[in-house]
Amino acid sequence: MQISQRAQNMPSSPIRKLARYADEAKRNGLHVYHLNIGQPDIKTPRCAFDALQDLDRDILEYSPSEGYKSLRTKLVSYYAEYGIDLSPDEIIITCGGSEAVQFAYMACLNPGDEIIVTDPSYANYMAFAISAGAIVKSVKTSIEDGFRLPPVSKFEEQITDKTKAILICNPNNPTGYLYTRKEMQQIRDLVKKHNLYLFSDEVYREFIYTKQPYISACHLEGIEENVVLIDSVSKRYSECGIRIGALITKNKEVRKAVMKFCQARLSPPLIGQLIAEASLSTPQEYMDEVYEEYLSRRNFLVDGLNKIDGVYSPTPMGAFYTMVKLPVDDAEKFCQWCLTDFSYEGQTLMMAPGSGFYTDPAEGRNEVRMAYVLNKEDLGKALFVLQKALEEYNKQNG
Amino acid sequence: MQISQRAQNMPSSPIRKLARYADEAKRNGLHVYHLNIGQPDIKTPRCAFDALQDLDRDILEYSPSEGYKSLRTKLVSYYAEYGIDLSPDEIIITCGGSEAVQFAYMACLNPGDEIIVTDPSYANYMAFAISAGAIVKSVKTSIEDGFRLPPVSKFEEQITDKTKAILICNPNNPTGYLYTRKEMQQIRDLVKKHNLYLFSDEVYREFIYTKQPYISACHLEGIEENVVLIDSVSKRYSECGIRIGALITKNKEVRKAVMKFCQARLSPPLIGQLIAEASLSTPQEYMDEVYEEYLSRRNFLVDGLNKIDGVYSPTPMGAFYTMVKLPVDDAEKFCQWCLTDFSYEGQTLMMAPGSGFYTDPAEGRNEVRMAYVLNKEDLGKALFVLQKALEEYNKQNG
Repeated sequence: MQISQRAQNMPSSPIRKLARYADEAKRNGLHVYHLNIGQPDIKTPRCAFDALQDLDRDILEYSPSEGYKSLRTKLVSYYAEYGIDLSPDEIIITCGGSEAVQFAYMACLNPGDEIIVTDPSYANYMAFAISAGAIVKSVKTSIEDGFRLPPVSKFEEQITDKTKAILICNPNNPTGYLYTRKEMQQIRDLVKKHNLYLFSDEVYREFIYTKQPYISACHLEGIEENVVLIDSVSKRYSECGIRIGALITKNKEVRKAVMKFCQARLSPPLIGQLIAEASLSTPQEYMDEVYEEYLSRRNFLVDGLNKIDGVYSPTPMGAFYTMVKLPVDDAEKFCQWCLTDFSYEGQTLMMAPGSGFYTDPAEGRNEVRMAYVLNKEDLGKALFVLQKALEEYNKQNG
Repeated sequence: MQISQRAQNMPSSPIRKLARYADEAKRNGLHVYHLNIGQPDIKTPRCAFDALQDLDRDILEYSPSEGYKSLRTKLVSYYAEYGIDLSPDEIIITCGGSEAVQFAYMACLNPGDEIIVTDPSYANYMAFAISAGAIVKSVKTSIEDGFRLPPVSKFEEQITDKTKAILICNPNNPTGYLYTRKEMQQIRDLVKKHNLYLFSDEVYREFIYTKQPYISACHLEGIEENVVLIDSVSKRYSECGIRIGALITKNKEVRKAVMKFCQARLSPPLIGQLIAEASLSTPQEYMDEVYEEYLSRRNFLVDGLNKIDGVYSPTPMGAFYTMVKLPVDDAEKFCQWCLTDFSYEGQTLMMAPGSGFYTDPAEGRNEVRMAYVLNKEDLGKALFVLQKALEEYNKQNG
């Protein structure tokens, strides 16, 4: 039986293979520190659960394809706090940020169209592009430069008459980089000059650890019709499982096109919307506590990493990831080895190989992405285990 | 800004426009009987809600991309009752039956590939095909023949070297038709002869009102690797909003391909899965009551319709829809007129124009789809209002 070309082209996540080894390691009695995933260990706010207790319905019926008006209205107030001026009509509720990326591609890009991303990037931007028949071109950022935006000329080199969009993630997954005002203005000028879409994934805006301002794509003047904001409540309230995101744009034609895809899939998850709406009333103390927790984890992890011989991590400005350079020949091999051939006092660790975040998997061969979604005690132990693993691995392979 | 060709090709649901008129009618104080939608008024079983009350979690985290093992294991027992022998690995949980259709197309069909559906069909089969770049060819069934399957020769006429799949919906939405054993065997032979995929949407299997047996595509011998079953808990437990469906296949390569799309969208809705799993323990009494209710509504509606001058409805064998022939020049115009220009004692009704269910919208111009998702009292009133509307419409247009 035929398997479609796009399915064949879709990358198999390297994480998937490693996850099987991690399961095996656990079955063998090892404790595995999971630094590989973006699933926070932070508790979901209480008010999210209260929404379920208060549920007063007899029928779990379809919701509107664009999502409940009450949720969209509440989101308007949320965005207003960030200086983003919207009406409920400009917000379309999606099944996670993932569906928002997918619908943005499907509505705006034809097969063969090109989209520019910065490299390294969240792997699924590439996967959704393949699924939409679009071609990803990349502009490389590097760990040595702290993953800052390369000069505009590097973007212009990639632009052809097929280029229809630039996609950014800000604060960035996997690098933790936060674009400066100057960089965002450069992107705006580029988008304007070439009349491109700007898809901007800003799901980590709550997690910015510098005094630097948060510049949303929606703050940029003169490209209001070009911007499609990708958002999600997943990370903000530690509720990744409810699958509630949003696609936001002032461009009416894009919204009309996106709505056709929304109608085909009928509606976003009902219960998730109720939880998301309740979560928008999360007390500031919760947000402050979570923020402080991530900040102190970031400092703890990055300090610890940079104390290990040959290891380097820049200091991420936002989100809860960092890309880390390891003194190994092949990080993917090392990650696997940690799960299959190594343990220290009954412990080991799982990390995401860096190559999975590059459009060319030959890149990032000595990098891994770590998520600081564990508490500091566990992070401390994981750092110790990492140090031991590197010593042992390089002894065996040296 | 460019809107993608596929978005432009996606049909705008005629229902969408009518829904706005219905809202307007309600604002003007009219009572609108909604015969247009597949959203049952039946209460969701109590055990579904209990799952929410019993929720014992601190974090609403990602679930596995293929769905929880516990849910898939429980589904194995459910299918066993229908003589469908599966293992949990052969079941992939999706975001509604919609995502299962979408992933089946994306994994199995290349752009330009053809898929054969029976006409009339559920409109979103066409929408998802456009979104995957596939081309829908149709084999016409007709209201005069009770929508039974046309001779195999009609299918063979449509088969080209681009044909990769046949899609059936059984029991059928919108017609309520149930394929006989002989018809299913004909489909099997066809699928086998031409080595096609058989996508079989069987979400209405609980609602079969004849003594005729339910023949699943999974019962057909010799095409085990060709069958992809599309399923959903939405209709069965009146919980359309939770967005839990399944893609089921014994074909390992297809599952591997589908999983790539599953991984890209991370996970199906968490809370929906908990509800679906609990719903699988719904007492038989609930299922029996719901069945009896639909059966008596079906009889009541179809009898009532056929008593109105010039109106004809075949007796649907399953699901909760019927296609109805009306004595009007243009059913779409009539449906709109009912909402914008007609009322009887403060009431009117909304129906789904038949043309939306045909691949060629020139077809079905004097048909509408009615869902019997209202109680008999309301159905009775709706029938009376329909009769008055037809009289008045044909007086004005006669």
